[in-house]
Amino acid sequence: MTLSNALADCAIKINRTMEDLLPGALGAEAILLDAMKYSSLGEGKKIRPFMVLQSSKLFGVKEECARRVGSAVEFLHSYSLIHDDLPAMDDSDFRRGKKSCHKRFNEATAILAGDALLTLAFEILSDPLTAEDSFVRCQLVNFLAKSAGHQGMVAGQMIDLLAEGKTLCLDEIVQMQSLKTGEIFAFCMISGGILGGASKLQLDALKKYAYGFGIAFQIVDDLLDVEGNIDTIGKPGGQDAKVEKATLVAKLGVEEARHKAVLLVNESIEALKLWGREADYLRALAQFVLERQR
Amino acid sequence: MTLSNALADCAIKINRTMEDLLPGALGAEAILLDAMKYSSLGEGKKIRPFMVLQSSKLFGVKEECARRVGSAVEFLHSYSLIHDDLPAMDDSDFRRGKKSCHKRFNEATAILAGDALLTLAFEILSDPLTAEDSFVRCQLVNFLAKSAGHQGMVAGQMIDLLAEGKTLCLDEIVQMQSLKTGEIFAFCMISGGILGGASKLQLDALKKYAYGFGIAFQIVDDLLDVEGNIDTIGKPGGQDAKVEKATLVAKLGVEEARHKAVLLVNESIEALKLWGREADYLRALAQFVLERQR
Repeated sequence: MTLSNALADCAIKINRTMEDLLPGALGAEAILLDAMKYSSLGEGKKIRPFMVLQSSKLFGVKEECARRVGSAVEFLHSYSLIHDDLPAMDDSDFRRGKKSCHKRFNEATAILAGDALLTLAFEILSDPLTAEDSFVRCQLVNFLAKSAGHQGMVAGQMIDLLAEGKTLCLDEIVQMQSLKTGEIFAFCMISGGILGGASKLQLDALKKYAYGFGIAFQIVDDLLDVEGNIDTIGKPGGQDAKVEKATLVAKLGVEEARHKAVLLVNESIEALKLWGREADYLRALAQFVLERQR
Repeated sequence: MTLSNALADCAIKINRTMEDLLPGALGAEAILLDAMKYSSLGEGKKIRPFMVLQSSKLFGVKEECARRVGSAVEFLHSYSLIHDDLPAMDDSDFRRGKKSCHKRFNEATAILAGDALLTLAFEILSDPLTAEDSFVRCQLVNFLAKSAGHQGMVAGQMIDLLAEGKTLCLDEIVQMQSLKTGEIFAFCMISGGILGGASKLQLDALKKYAYGFGIAFQIVDDLLDVEGNIDTIGKPGGQDAKVEKATLVAKLGVEEARHKAVLLVNESIEALKLWGREADYLRALAQFVLERQR
């Protein structure tokens, strides 16, 4: 199967699991559930769940467990996008080619839908269906909380917010982006190892892959933002430049940034040398980062 | 020790534990941490942590474990207040006699501080320091997530938002308030039982206490809102009536609502009949609900 077929196949499976995890509701809760579904199901490449599934496969983890962890990460990712798009944050009216959550519903509903999706991620991870061993479940919860919280993703958002209009040095930009997106990619890769009882050496390799992948992913995101338009990336292009956001592309220029992304992807692939053919999709995924158009 | 001394003593201990759990930070993270501390430390009666400590005492749970769980609940409670106060939600400029988080900092910081506090609650509960047994930790995480999420507190908020200007029947108001505040009180009471390996019978009694307590607490809150002013309750009085909020006081009138609160408190105290003197503070706490001035 080609990578794009494998990605599409994973997206279908994950959407199904996510739907099962978001039951129907009546009354006011129905609107809350609608908003949660609107912003998490369907669109989106589901790259994070794909990483969870692929890293889980390296350790022979049952797919149904990996799918639940992948769904939890995708719910958490969706929460971060909903809150990011709010008027007080990035003030984005569009996301993935459709209206952002607060535009489709309203601001209050978007805040609550984000809160509920974040909470749901922890509900799923702590459920016995996700892993038989409660110690494994606790590790997943603790690791995701650390990756997403005030020393992880939220810290990255905060640095990003305060960086607008300021000049960050290269290291500061890399640190900010590692926090903002890299920590969750690291969780995706390492969660497979936690589920499958990986060794320290293996966990370190997974982390290294995620690190390079995360920064390269962000560089390409920023390149697409500079070059792209609403048709290919689902949101109006040039938004980051407009508000003078601190990006590696703005710092290094398009050519050097692209070169840096290539180096990082090579490092990611190098980190997978512990594994054979079973890691081929992860290698292809890293390559794919450089080629993606949206 | 009188109840008010016991409450004050608990508040000091919990503030200390919460401070330990919120380390210092540099740069942009420092502002995030400041906002998290501003809205969770210091003020506030810390009634929820008090319930956790008292219910834990019924089962001989180590106080340091109960304090961590109490802190987690208080962080989660603080998140809910921060997000509640946002302009898109209740639009409150004051909380506990001082500026609300988005007024003291700004809206984006308040959203992120709330997100980070919610995430921190799960980080604390899943940490081995909270309970040696990982199965116990998972139960705490799962129960808190269910109590706080799209079938718990957030659902209650959503119903509350949509109820503005509408007429809810008595049962609908009780259901909304059970979700909005009762679920977290239930977690506080039951968490002690989970930590201490309580029987089904004991857990049911704790839940029953929390249920009556929660509704009575809300009625008194609404009564204070009708009667109170900014000096005694820390926010301008009459706000709920102004936006025609669905409250039991609005539905039943002041006298009948107060009578209902008395009945509920009696039921709460009745539920504690499984315990002797060791539950006296919980009995006093239920009585205290009727007498509180803010």
